[in-house]
Amino acid sequence: MSRTKPFVILSNPEIAEVRKEFRSAISQHKTILVVGNCWVHYRGRANSKLEPGERILMIKEDGSLLIHRPVGYDPVNWQPPGCVFHIQITGGLLKVHAVRQKPAESVKVFFDKVHMFSAWSLEDSGEFSLYASEEDMQKAILMRPDFLEEGFEPISYEKKVEPGFVDVYGTDRDGNLVVVEIKRKTATSEAVLQLAKYVEAIKSRANRQVRGILVAPNIAKGVQTLLASLGLEFKALDPKKCASILERGKAAKLETFFV
Amino acid sequence: MSRTKPFVILSNPEIAEVRKEFRSAISQHKTILVVGNCWVHYRGRANSKLEPGERILMIKEDGSLLIHRPVGYDPVNWQPPGCVFHIQITGGLLKVHAVRQKPAESVKVFFDKVHMFSAWSLEDSGEFSLYASEEDMQKAILMRPDFLEEGFEPISYEKKVEPGFVDVYGTDRDGNLVVVEIKRKTATSEAVLQLAKYVEAIKSRANRQVRGILVAPNIAKGVQTLLASLGLEFKALDPKKCASILERGKAAKLETFFV
Repeated sequence: MSRTKPFVILSNPEIAEVRKEFRSAISQHKTILVVGNCWVHYRGRANSKLEPGERILMIKEDGSLLIHRPVGYDPVNWQPPGCVFHIQITGGLLKVHAVRQKPAESVKVFFDKVHMFSAWSLEDSGEFSLYASEEDMQKAILMRPDFLEEGFEPISYEKKVEPGFVDVYGTDRDGNLVVVEIKRKTATSEAVLQLAKYVEAIKSRANRQVRGILVAPNIAKGVQTLLASLGLEFKALDPKKCASILERGKAAKLETFFV
Repeated sequence: MSRTKPFVILSNPEIAEVRKEFRSAISQHKTILVVGNCWVHYRGRANSKLEPGERILMIKEDGSLLIHRPVGYDPVNWQPPGCVFHIQITGGLLKVHAVRQKPAESVKVFFDKVHMFSAWSLEDSGEFSLYASEEDMQKAILMRPDFLEEGFEPISYEKKVEPGFVDVYGTDRDGNLVVVEIKRKTATSEAVLQLAKYVEAIKSRANRQVRGILVAPNIAKGVQTLLASLGLEFKALDPKKCASILERGKAAKLETFFV
């Protein structure tokens, strides 16, 4: 074991042995993996019950809990960090009780068979970096137009106008045309003038009000003055957070749960 | 092993042994757990990089993938079901490459040390049941008023009016008052008459338009006719899905990622 971290793996253990190692691992804030046959009761914001089956229970060093079935990337039950755990044997079953105070929530997992118990001291200080491009920001706005503003509806993107291509083009809630120019770094006066050209080009052909919005992580004060003097607007949007939205966009939308 | 499912657990294995068992487990659609030191590259909707550290890799029988750090209930990288996996040894490292076609996404996980490899045939047909009350439905509407309709803003709930308590009370986007009556089962004519009483009670005191909306999983045709004849409205809302929203409401909101 000289090349590895200290860890415990019990294959096909007796329940009493699991209880002992489980309690020890919880007290040492280890990361725990249990594979076995279990059922689950949840009471809290809602109530749920999961009938028996073979699953993976994961408890992390911060006191978060996840129960994974053999299919689906979402856990079937889970608790955020900060749970207090009670490990008991009751009627020949291993009972793992995870409790949170605010809001009051309780998950009870009952195992009648543990195939594996393992506990780990994991060292992980590696940095996670999301790289975001202007295209990522554009996609994030197309996916969630309300991030530009409530009522914004995209009509097209990469729209050709005389001086080049408009990043995103749409209408606001009052029916005005909206021209969006996106920059992934601090907005410069060049970006402002570029947007102004697009807005002028579209104004010359439209019989409606045309608004120009510069989207960037931030803007210098002098550039903000120029922007305002041209009647244009600024919307702060963090490119890394756009990338994170795109990554999360893979997950089922909340809306899909509703009739 | 007579009492358990067939499984493989390798503690502190050599990389070559892991490759062999990994490929066999993938071809048999087993659920796989790997604990080790790894780094991760993701390319797809966004791009990300995770520097080295000790983590848990989970691959499920449906081809979904999760990478968990020792803290936080969210996976740091993940892929939905349907990935194709390529398991190779390259420069002494174990490379796990998960590929999806639509959208084109790729996760590459490089292990320089595997502490544990395990593969499981899990049997799990247990039903998951969410129990929802009218209170759950009320909370879901208060959390996400747009689920009633766009522009709805709650003012209060359990508002006392002469005949009893209004479940949710608010305004619509045109400034009309909205009275909401919630039922967790098919809407009955009793529910319609109850809502009508509340609407009348509020109309008698308000100098604005008052709308009444009956929220329930469904409504019988005859009851719908009665509702319409009284100038009231119906909104279908599934109570179990409300409970699921509340459960998911624990997760960080998308909005929190934006400036």
